[in-house]
Amino acid sequence: MDKHCFNVIIAGGKGTRFWPLSRAQRPKQLLKILSRKSLIDETAERVYPLGGSERTLVVTVAEQVSALRKELAALPKNNFIAEPIGKNTAPCIGLAALEVLRRDPKGVMVVLPADHWVADVKGFQRTLKTAVTIARKHDRLVTIGIRPDYPETGYGYIMKNGRLAGSGGAFQVKRFTEKPNEATAKKLMRQGSLWNSGIFVWKAALLLELVNRYQPEIGAALDRIGKAAAGSIANPSPALRRTISREYGKMPSISIDFAVLEKAGAEGRVVTVEADFGWSDVGSWSAVHRMMGKDAHGNAGNGRWVQVGAKNCLIHSPDRLVVLLGLDNAVVVDTPDAILVGDLNRSQEVREIVDELHRQGLTSYTIK
Amino acid sequence: MDKHCFNVIIAGGKGTRFWPLSRAQRPKQLLKILSRKSLIDETAERVYPLGGSERTLVVTVAEQVSALRKELAALPKNNFIAEPIGKNTAPCIGLAALEVLRRDPKGVMVVLPADHWVADVKGFQRTLKTAVTIARKHDRLVTIGIRPDYPETGYGYIMKNGRLAGSGGAFQVKRFTEKPNEATAKKLMRQGSLWNSGIFVWKAALLLELVNRYQPEIGAALDRIGKAAAGSIANPSPALRRTISREYGKMPSISIDFAVLEKAGAEGRVVTVEADFGWSDVGSWSAVHRMMGKDAHGNAGNGRWVQVGAKNCLIHSPDRLVVLLGLDNAVVVDTPDAILVGDLNRSQEVREIVDELHRQGLTSYTIK
Repeated sequence: MDKHCFNVIIAGGKGTRFWPLSRAQRPKQLLKILSRKSLIDETAERVYPLGGSERTLVVTVAEQVSALRKELAALPKNNFIAEPIGKNTAPCIGLAALEVLRRDPKGVMVVLPADHWVADVKGFQRTLKTAVTIARKHDRLVTIGIRPDYPETGYGYIMKNGRLAGSGGAFQVKRFTEKPNEATAKKLMRQGSLWNSGIFVWKAALLLELVNRYQPEIGAALDRIGKAAAGSIANPSPALRRTISREYGKMPSISIDFAVLEKAGAEGRVVTVEADFGWSDVGSWSAVHRMMGKDAHGNAGNGRWVQVGAKNCLIHSPDRLVVLLGLDNAVVVDTPDAILVGDLNRSQEVREIVDELHRQGLTSYTIK
Repeated sequence: MDKHCFNVIIAGGKGTRFWPLSRAQRPKQLLKILSRKSLIDETAERVYPLGGSERTLVVTVAEQVSALRKELAALPKNNFIAEPIGKNTAPCIGLAALEVLRRDPKGVMVVLPADHWVADVKGFQRTLKTAVTIARKHDRLVTIGIRPDYPETGYGYIMKNGRLAGSGGAFQVKRFTEKPNEATAKKLMRQGSLWNSGIFVWKAALLLELVNRYQPEIGAALDRIGKAAAGSIANPSPALRRTISREYGKMPSISIDFAVLEKAGAEGRVVTVEADFGWSDVGSWSAVHRMMGKDAHGNAGNGRWVQVGAKNCLIHSPDRLVVLLGLDNAVVVDTPDAILVGDLNRSQEVREIVDELHRQGLTSYTIK
């Protein structure tokens, strides 16, 4: 454990890709999709060995704070930072950086989405320790790059340059590439590019310095929040809460990748640590199927299910028995009031179901 | 209404083809698959205009009597004939014939399975009235033959001979054919053969005479029951109940088709009335899909459901919302404890699910 290391878990996921399990009030990070634990609980437990629970912060929108406090009972109550409204990752990470800096001027942040899957937890922790060391010693923005298993078109990619001297294996980042088409994804794989995991490690002070340089509007708003923050940003006074609300409202909704990383990368300030610990952003039911253990016919599931001539299916049914007859590549998700039955290959379109339910006035099925 | 006409509804269906909706204690005839009414309720209402509820009898196994009395509240309590054990249709229809004969020596029986579907109820009633007239005037066994819509391999067929003189349109039956393969079914269709609907009309006295001739074992057993029956067979004294049990136990389990119709047909005693009232024996979920009204994408269902890129699906979900994403030809049946999700084209295999549940010790899902 590194006493300057802070874990910053970004819990911003919405409730659309895993409908009907996920709802507006039960977002992805709270789902128990892969095990009996929620994704955020698994995420937190994976990083406690790095910063300890005392130095693990969670950033989320105000209305989710109480649910997350309950879910992560091991965390101090003051470690939850509330965004007044959901913005993109740049304002969110900036706000967390202010709190880390307030607690420790030498603080290094490990920034992690709350809803990812990792197969090899020890490998993951080793990688992050390496990244923390590099971030402190070389004062760079460190990204965790995942060696691709297949040409996924749903991820961003990191193109590498040469090694960072004296870093013990980090690479300079040449460029970030947004979600590619399949041909490009294959080419990127061949060139040795890495998946951009969205896991970042850097000194809070460096991050704020670079936000100021590349995004002066966000930088100025964060400055005003920082000046108003006599006490903790995670436990704000009413006056501070009002300041955060006002300043947050002014900030553009922009991702940290676009706001800072791409620009800092062009100036040689970003490096990547290449990793292979078995990772996924758990982006859809088909990603869940890919991660889970399967029966002899390629079926995987949570709950009780029986198959008769069915293969490559995913079942999530904690309460009821599901029987599959002669289907291939189907997904079945059962909840107390709604059931999804779909083509697993089209699970990216689950978002459209939520739109369709709204169109048909069936909004009650998208909330609770 | 014909005062000598009796409706005899045979309620012998089991609970396997419509799992998970059908269970051992909720057999097919009690299911509300096609409308808000059960199949047997619809069957009974279709024939009340023929015999009236006073002369509508239901034959079923003893353990189903109380459930059926509740379901068909319009029927007199004494109109339910209990079989001590489930046998095939010959013993069952023979027992009903005894009761009809006891009530009316001139009684004509309209024998109907409890679980069929009819589109054109008026046409159905017209056909049966014609059949009753022919049965009385010509003293034949009258079968209702359905003009086929397509070469169904799940039905038996009736091959016609020439017209029965003076009958106003009935045909002599040349031969009965059991479930054919598809090539034979196509040939039978071309030749003008008819689906054997399992709906029969005849005098009770003639039926018993022919049972005696072709199946002397059943005839003798029925004779002994008839002699013991001072009162109603539908409301037997303890002594009569014991006699029925004993005699029923001796009878072979044989269908009326095989026991009587095929043999009587060879002697020119069977005719068929050709009909086209829209008929199905509701043999599987795919048959249900064929019968129901569909949306623009060929989807049909009971309950609340939403489709996103799904077509030709069948949904039965009275309680929960079902959302279909990108499936073709799927069936989804939701019940409080179990959900079937399958390939609609394989719905004949639903029986095998029940076997599989038994193999896995999940018998609780096959009972209630």
